[in-house]
This record gives sequence, structure tokens and C-alpha cells, in this order.
Amino acid sequence: MPTPIVSRIQALRSHMQKKNWDAVIVSGTDPHNSEYLPARWQQRKWISGFTGSYGTVVITQTHAGLWTDTRYFIQARIELEGTGIELHPLRVPDAVDYPQWLRSHLSKDAVVAIEGGCMSYRETEALKKALAPIQGRVEASEDFLNTIWKDRPDLPMNPVYLLSEKYSGRSAKEKIAWLRETIHQTNCSHILLNGLDQIAWLFNIRSHDVPFNPVAISYALVSMDEAVFFITPGKTTERVVKQLQEQGVVLAPYASLPHVLQNLVRDSIVMTDGNTLSYTTFTQLTQHLGPDNVQDIPSPVILEKAIKNAVEIDGFKKAFLQDGIAMERFLYWLEKEIEAGNTPTEQEVSKKLSGIRALAEEAMGDSFQYISAYGPNAALPHYSHGAESGSKLEKKGLYLIDSGGQYLTGTTDITRTIPLGSLTHQEKEDYTVALKGMISLSTAVFLPGTKGTHLDMLAREPLWKFFRNYGHGTGHGIGHFLCVHEGPQDIRMTWRDQDIVPGMVTSNEPGIYREASHGVRHENILLCKTIKENEFGQWLGFETLTLCHIDTSAVLTELLERWEAEWLNTYNNRVFNTLSPFLTYDESVWLKQKTAPVSVP
Amino acid sequence: MPTPIVSRIQALRSHMQKKNWDAVIVSGTDPHNSEYLPARWQQRKWISGFTGSYGTVVITQTHAGLWTDTRYFIQARIELEGTGIELHPLRVPDAVDYPQWLRSHLSKDAVVAIEGGCMSYRETEALKKALAPIQGRVEASEDFLNTIWKDRPDLPMNPVYLLSEKYSGRSAKEKIAWLRETIHQTNCSHILLNGLDQIAWLFNIRSHDVPFNPVAISYALVSMDEAVFFITPGKTTERVVKQLQEQGVVLAPYASLPHVLQNLVRDSIVMTDGNTLSYTTFTQLTQHLGPDNVQDIPSPVILEKAIKNAVEIDGFKKAFLQDGIAMERFLYWLEKEIEAGNTPTEQEVSKKLSGIRALAEEAMGDSFQYISAYGPNAALPHYSHGAESGSKLEKKGLYLIDSGGQYLTGTTDITRTIPLGSLTHQEKEDYTVALKGMISLSTAVFLPGTKGTHLDMLAREPLWKFFRNYGHGTGHGIGHFLCVHEGPQDIRMTWRDQDIVPGMVTSNEPGIYREASHGVRHENILLCKTIKENEFGQWLGFETLTLCHIDTSAVLTELLERWEAEWLNTYNNRVFNTLSPFLTYDESVWLKQKTAPVSVP
Repeated sequence: MPTPIVSRIQALRSHMQKKNWDAVIVSGTDPHNSEYLPARWQQRKWISGFTGSYGTVVITQTHAGLWTDTRYFIQARIELEGTGIELHPLRVPDAVDYPQWLRSHLSKDAVVAIEGGCMSYRETEALKKALAPIQGRVEASEDFLNTIWKDRPDLPMNPVYLLSEKYSGRSAKEKIAWLRETIHQTNCSHILLNGLDQIAWLFNIRSHDVPFNPVAISYALVSMDEAVFFITPGKTTERVVKQLQEQGVVLAPYASLPHVLQNLVRDSIVMTDGNTLSYTTFTQLTQHLGPDNVQDIPSPVILEKAIKNAVEIDGFKKAFLQDGIAMERFLYWLEKEIEAGNTPTEQEVSKKLSGIRALAEEAMGDSFQYISAYGPNAALPHYSHGAESGSKLEKKGLYLIDSGGQYLTGTTDITRTIPLGSLTHQEKEDYTVALKGMISLSTAVFLPGTKGTHLDMLAREPLWKFFRNYGHGTGHGIGHFLCVHEGPQDIRMTWRDQDIVPGMVTSNEPGIYREASHGVRHENILLCKTIKENEFGQWLGFETLTLCHIDTSAVLTELLERWEAEWLNTYNNRVFNTLSPFLTYDESVWLKQKTAPVSVP
Repeated sequence: MPTPIVSRIQALRSHMQKKNWDAVIVSGTDPHNSEYLPARWQQRKWISGFTGSYGTVVITQTHAGLWTDTRYFIQARIELEGTGIELHPLRVPDAVDYPQWLRSHLSKDAVVAIEGGCMSYRETEALKKALAPIQGRVEASEDFLNTIWKDRPDLPMNPVYLLSEKYSGRSAKEKIAWLRETIHQTNCSHILLNGLDQIAWLFNIRSHDVPFNPVAISYALVSMDEAVFFITPGKTTERVVKQLQEQGVVLAPYASLPHVLQNLVRDSIVMTDGNTLSYTTFTQLTQHLGPDNVQDIPSPVILEKAIKNAVEIDGFKKAFLQDGIAMERFLYWLEKEIEAGNTPTEQEVSKKLSGIRALAEEAMGDSFQYISAYGPNAALPHYSHGAESGSKLEKKGLYLIDSGGQYLTGTTDITRTIPLGSLTHQEKEDYTVALKGMISLSTAVFLPGTKGTHLDMLAREPLWKFFRNYGHGTGHGIGHFLCVHEGPQDIRMTWRDQDIVPGMVTSNEPGIYREASHGVRHENILLCKTIKENEFGQWLGFETLTLCHIDTSAVLTELLERWEAEWLNTYNNRVFNTLSPFLTYDESVWLKQKTAPVSVP
């Protein structure tokens, strides 16, 4: 029996024939280049059944393919079964990306259709370039899936609310003034923002249009005398409208953006970010104003947003306190559960933690889809038990849980790997060695000009000395009650020309994964700050924001240097002292035991 | 009284008026983009008096400027005194490079003259781009200094000799066959090489046209059926010509290159490297063949030459053995000299070492101008005592000597910082902390794909933990009986997209410098090799080639980790065991004491 996917692809192919399209690309994002998508824009999932967060689908009359990377190979193989869609692996040696594949599989003058509103200008230009040798043409269509996707969901209509200055630390008015100064310095007259977290930050608004990310589907257009918030009418109360107006923000319907852009005065110079703006909107701008009047520049909001102000930093500390209490309550519960001989499923355990977090002060939901992975499942760094309940936890081996919460005061992300019973020597070694990597980055000392690429080595070398490694980056930026993954900084081997500067909040998450056996990851969150100044410069370092003990029962202390053991004891002691006043007596007694110092070699 | 420099600049300005040039650039290199130049091409030194290895001179009617970097600020200030030439600092915050300076100081339609034969295509294109906003024009002239430089030296006429396969490990014939395969894969018909060390490597020839670098002034043009060596007649004996012919190499006069290029068949596709080829020659090629038939690609010879073959690696080991014997004899002499109450000058000590090296088996001279720096002088990483004899060494403080030799079997480079008597605590701290950096890089374990930028952190972080740093890179590639500085790899914070791969030979030289007080640098040379293979990949590491003890009397053992102390003891023990059979009895007894193990914490 054909799956629904097969008939969807059939319907699309008929449509393609009518249109004379040789290939169609279903990209994995939306007009805002979002990581998490509202249902309407989950086009890739609808056409392929693949639920991972990264991938591109290409359909021709004879081939259907999904391009995705190492993280999703196993998941994709399962989800694509019976659909006729072939997996094209990326980030492997000799990988062929979809533009290259199209170039070598299409004939001369081929037409490739894209959803121009849901593919970035940059990606489309790269595709056009790849097709040039075969004189291929890219046709930007709008919502071509509509003709066959009969029950396609509408865009969400969640209310927009304001984030108090008590949390944001800086009024929208001030942020807009800063942005105007920046536009002015770049000799532009306007900036067009399409990144949802950038708009939420700028106007101090939040909403829940997208899972996990507290953002509203919107655009922003700021000029020297106007700041326009494009949002679908009905999502804002009169009170919100009035409060925004007080900040100098005027509202326009979300759908009116093309009309407004079409009516910009001709000598406007618009700054916008071709990495994220859709091909359709970018092209509309250049056609209307001429290419010289569209300045394709990475949005300055990205860096400004990443450098947290004093109020945001204070908020983060409150969020991590709440999160630490929730985590310790959860870990206490889990230990008792396993001790009692119960075997909860990965899904049950995950839901338990989510439930405990939801009880915290100022809690606003989960910050991403938890990774709850027992035993061999944890060998997949991005494991998902999917719609099923997953494996049952037993009184042995390692259980990995990567989770996080949204709070009005900040966003959290934490991974703990928990020994549930007897462990193999290799499990203990991996646990200890990955911990050495996390400690090494936690204690980094560095100078201005240091990039994430440099710092990545500090997390990796302790593992490399034991001939172990992990196939993912070490850290990502974290938003303030916004996206759990944000730029511009990250910590990974790939070069990114972005300094790590004071005020940035970044994750620190080395791991070790053994196929069909186990996985280990330790993740704390780091705040960059100035720690000293001398003749060599202004020295930077990290403060660990995360408050949750590291289980020492899996640590092989003989593998630790003295200073590493001391770091571990100091950290666990700080966790106990900070959290115990908020725990029950029983929890507190238990945490005291859990944080007992290891012997220093 | 005006210095000769002043009258030279006056003469140049008159010439500029006749030619209607608004500015003239005297670059610091030659048609081969060499680091060390024959006298004829030392144009920058002739016009400015500045003797540093890096800088650009710009002359207008009202301004004369030298652009150079941090290494040479102090030296430049001394050497430019009285010349009227102003120092423009580079690699400092808000530095303005000379193209930017010209753009903002010249008027519209200005004409900037360059020596087109001595400035690379890439640098000239960057200049043209910078001048575009003022519609400035670059005029490529030839040898414009000739009209005023009456006693300009001719090009050197040193004989060319062949390096036996016993040393090179691979015949010119084989190298040419490899190069043809590479040209073919790139869909080119020819490759034009102008880098002197690349040509010397390809044809297994050496000469002494340039100080320190055993190369011959030449070009190479290789096609599928010909390999032409452009060399001035009279530099090659009949025997050398015959031996080259046996390898499939034909000779043409050095001066005939333009003529030969002008007569290339029109459908030739020439691969060449616009980073190093002169603007004049590059432009000649594109004008003759059309821009599409000139493939501007980094020369493949650079990487191939950097990956040493087994015979070269064996040779390096012999060279470092010879060099180690020379260094230990020198250090023994120096200690006795200071103990006897003598106070030799920096120049005398430097000459002594050079003299001892010259006695070694297969020695072929120094590999660069030694840095011999006592006390506060060593605070300048590139200190030169110039033509003077320099400071006198006394029985206190630190003496730094950075030196190296050429041997038929390889090239060496070593820095030792030598305690001559009582030291301050800060001197000992700096000595120990810089040593921790060197040990850390020496013991690196890494995976394929790791760049020098990643490894740089391993040398730096141990210093950073003590809030100390050095303002230079950590390591550079080293040629095999060729240039002591070679690409493509280096180890520094600046990103370079070049993997460190087995067979590469690279320096490891962290330091700490305290203005007006002292300087410390420890430099060993590392060979990259495969050390292990497991499920995570093929693991790489380094073997230290340098054999010369590290003086432990300046080490504060309490600052060392246990494994660092163990590394130091193992290294010094290896030095003693390897070298003592070649030393006199007295030297050997002395070295035994010098290499006595430090107590392990």
C-alpha cells in the first residue's frame, strides 16, 4: 500500500509536468530562515515524512531525494522507508550537495522550481551559480504545494505580548535608537529584518507562533523616522499596540510587506541580510530600488543581541537557579524510581522533567525538544524516540538527557549523563574523558580576538589525548528568553570570524559516542566576562551559569589532573550551597551525598 | 647634513615630476616574491635605509612613508632618523595600510607608479581596487630606480649545482611527472613557477644567489612535453646541463622568459600563482592568452614540497644531529667563557656559533641571520645588533639565541634562552611558562583536518593561564635544505585553511617578552606523523627533531605538571644519550650534569 507520501509526490509530479518544471526543491525553512517552523511551513516534512531539523528535498520525474547530514542518517533511513525517497548524505567524504547533483543529472536549459518565499537569497544564488554551466534556470514560485496540500494549516494566530524592561534591561525605544545609529553609519536609510528572534529582541515582544522559540511571525522595517512592526492583525491587543506606540513602533499587517516595499521612495538604501531574507523579497527589493540600493550585510542585530546586558545576565542567573532546582528534583526522582525497580520509558522520563520545569517561577515551557536517550540510543547525538515511548530505563548503564527551559528571565540548555547502575570500564572512561574536555573549556583564559574556533581545541584536546572525539561542535550561542540556538558565535573547528566577547552566553558540550553501546555528553552554559587586565591585555574567561551537580560515581579519578578534580569539587560544592536552600530536606541530604568531594590525586 | 637617503628621494621626486607620477611604491620584494633578496633587488633598503625583512615605501612629492609591522617599529625609528621618512605602523588597532592611505591622500585621477616586475599580481590588484573610488591609475614601470641608482649591483652569478637523489629522495624526472599529472588534472597545458625554492625543489638544483636560501634566480615552465629551466647562461657547467637533460629538463636564458611566454601557442592554458607572480609577467600572460587561459591557482608545488619524503626525513634527522652537536659545543664554550669572567659581545657569540656549525658534516652555512640578544635586547623578538657588535654578555640574566644551519641533508632552526647567572623570579617564571607552551604543542594529538590555527591554541593556553602571551605566530614550515620559512602551513591564530599532515616539518616557538627587561623563547622543530588508528580516525602527533638540552636551572618545577616535568626529563635524557657519543669527554660530563632530571612534582 502506498504511503500518503507516495501519492503526494505523484501529485507534485503531475503539477510539475503542467508547469514544465524539471525539478522542484522543497527547502527546510520558512521566510524567516527559522530553525523551528509553524505547521504551515513544514513543507519538507509534509512531502517526505522526514522530521529532522535539517535537510532539503529534491523531486524530479524520475528521482526523489533528501539531502541531510550525519546527525540524521539513521532517522532518515527509518522515516523515508517506503516513500521512494533516496537519502543523499552530507558532511561525509565526497558528499555531493543538491546543486551539484542537479547540475550533473539535469539536461541543458532545465527549469528548477523553488518556493521563492521559503528559500534564502544566498542559497538561491548558489543554486543558480551551480546550474549556470548547463544553462539551467531557477523559477521562483509561490506556495506551489498549495495546489496539492488540501488541508494545509494556516499561519498561527498566537497573541503577542511585551517583555517587561525588568527582564529585557533595555527599552525598544533605546534599541531602535541604537539601530538607527548603525543604519546611519552604514549610509543606509532603512533596515529590513526578517529573523523572528531579532524582531522579538528589538521590539521587546514575545509570542508562541513557533514551538520552543517564543517569537511572533513578523517583519520589521526601521528607517530614520519610522519603526514598522509587520504582524497579522488580531494578534495584538489594543494595550500592546498602545505600549508599542509609546516606544515609537507602528504596526502594519504582516501580509502588507510586499506592498510597503513596492512603495518605498526610490532613493531609499535598504540594509538587509541575504543570508536569511527570502529570495522573493530580496529580489523584489533589488528590482524596485536597483541592486546598489540594497546593502546585503549580516544583520547588526545578531551581534548586539548576543551581547547580553547586565539585566539579562542577572536574569540568566535566576533562570539557571530555577533550572538547577528543577534538574536536581528530577534527578532525585529518577534515582528513586530506578532504585525502586521501575523501568520508565525515555518518553516518560522526558515528560517528567518537562513537568517539573513547568512548575518553576517564571517558567515559559521547554526551550527545545528534549533528547532522552538510554544506553545505545545515546550513541546518536540527536536521538529522538519520535512518537513512540522509546526504550525502558533499567538499573544499569548510562542515560543521557539534553533538555532546557524557557523562563521570562532567560533560556537554559543542559545535558547530564546519568549512571543508572553498574557501568563498564569504557563507559566510565568516556564519562571521565568527556568531562575533562568540559572542564578545560570552562577554565579557559583568553585574549580579545579569540574566536570559537580557537576555543574549540581546548575542549577537544583532553579527549584527543585519549584518542577519542565527537563529531559535532562544542558550543552554540543562547538567546535571552529567545532561541536556544543563536549566533553569531559558536565554538567549533570550522572557522567563523567572530570574536568571543564579554556578555556572550555559549554552551560547552563535549561528548563521546560509541555506536550500539552508549553515549556521553556533559553540557554546561558559559558566560564570557573580563577577568583581569595587565600589560598583555584585557583577559577574558568564563563563568559557568549552569547549576546542577555532576555525578562523580562514574568518574575515574585516576584520569583527572589535580586541578581538574579540584574544579569538579568546587563546582559540585557550589551547586549544593546554592540549590540546597530551595530543596526539600530529603532532596538536600541526597544532594549532599551526590556532591561529596572526590579524592584529589 | 642630508643623508644619502634624502638625496635619493629628491632624485626620485624629480623623476616622478618628469613622468607625472603622483606617487611611487617601492615594494619589499623581487620577481620571485622572495624573503631574502640579492643586492640588486634591495630597492626598499636603498631608497629608505630600512633593513627589516618586511615593509613598503611610498613616496609622493610631499610625503615619504614606510609601512611595516610591530616587529620592526623600534628598528625602523632608528634607521629612518634623518631621512624624512615617516613610519606607518601595521598590525596595530586602526592601522591604515598604504593603499587606504593613498586613496585618502591623493586627488582624483592620480597616477601611482609601481615596479611591475617586483610587485605581485595579487598585491597590485588590491592596490587598483583601493584606488578605484578616486579613479586612480596604477602605472607598472620597469626598473625606474635605474635612472638614479648609478651603482646598482647586477644580479648574482653563482654556480648552480645538483642535489643528489641521496639527499632529495626523488628524482627531478619523477617530480616533473607528478607535476604534469597535476597540471593535467587541472585542465591546464603549462605551469609557470617563479618561486625560487619551488624551482630548486622541482629540479633538485641548489645555488647561493640569495643569502641563507640555497636557491638560484630562475623560472620554470613545465608543459606536457617540456620542462624549461630559465637560468642565466654561465651559471651552469656542462656537466650540470647534461645531468638536467637526463632528467628531461632543458635550459633557456633567464632573460628570455618574456619572449618565450609571448610565443606560447594561443590555446595554451597556463597555471600560475598570482600571489607570487609579478604583475608584469601575469599581465603579459593574460594579454597574450586571454584571462580565461591563465589559471590563477596556488602553486601545487608548495604543498608537495612541504610533505617531506622518507629520505628527506632521514636527512633532517642527520641535520638535527649535526646541529645538536654544534649547539652543545657552543653552549659549553659559552658557559666556560662567562664563568671565566669574559664578556663577549652579541656579535662575537653569534659568530662563534656560526663558526662551530660550519665545521659540521655536510654543513652549508647559516639558514638565516641569527638573533643574538642579551638581556633587554631579547625583549624584541626580531632584535638585530645590526652592523655594530651589540651588548656584552655578563654573568647574570638571560641570553637568547635564535639560529639555524643549512645542511645538504636538511635545514635547521633553533632558539635557546640561556641563563648566564642569577635570574629574577619573573625571568624564571617566564622561562618556565613559555616552556609549558612548547611542551604542550610538542605533545599534541590531533585528527586529520586540524589546521595550524587550532594547534596554535595548545601552545598559547598554558601561557594564557598565567596571563602572558607573545605577539607572534607559534610556528612556520621549514624547507629541506631550502628556505627556513616555507608554506603552506603555519601555526598561528590567523586562520589558514591548510591541514597539518604527516611529513610536514614545522617550528614550535612560544615566547614571553618584557620591554626593557628580558625575553624568553624556546624553539624546537616538529615532524608531523601518524601515531595511532582507531574507530575515531587516524591520529596524528609530532616527533621533536631538535636535539639540544633545555637548561633546567631556570625552571620553576613547582609550576610544572607532573607530565610536563616527565616530558622535560625524557627529552633531556634523549639529548644526552644521542649526542654524548659525538662530544669530547669534558663536554659529555658537562652535558650529563645539564640534563640531570628535575624532580617530578
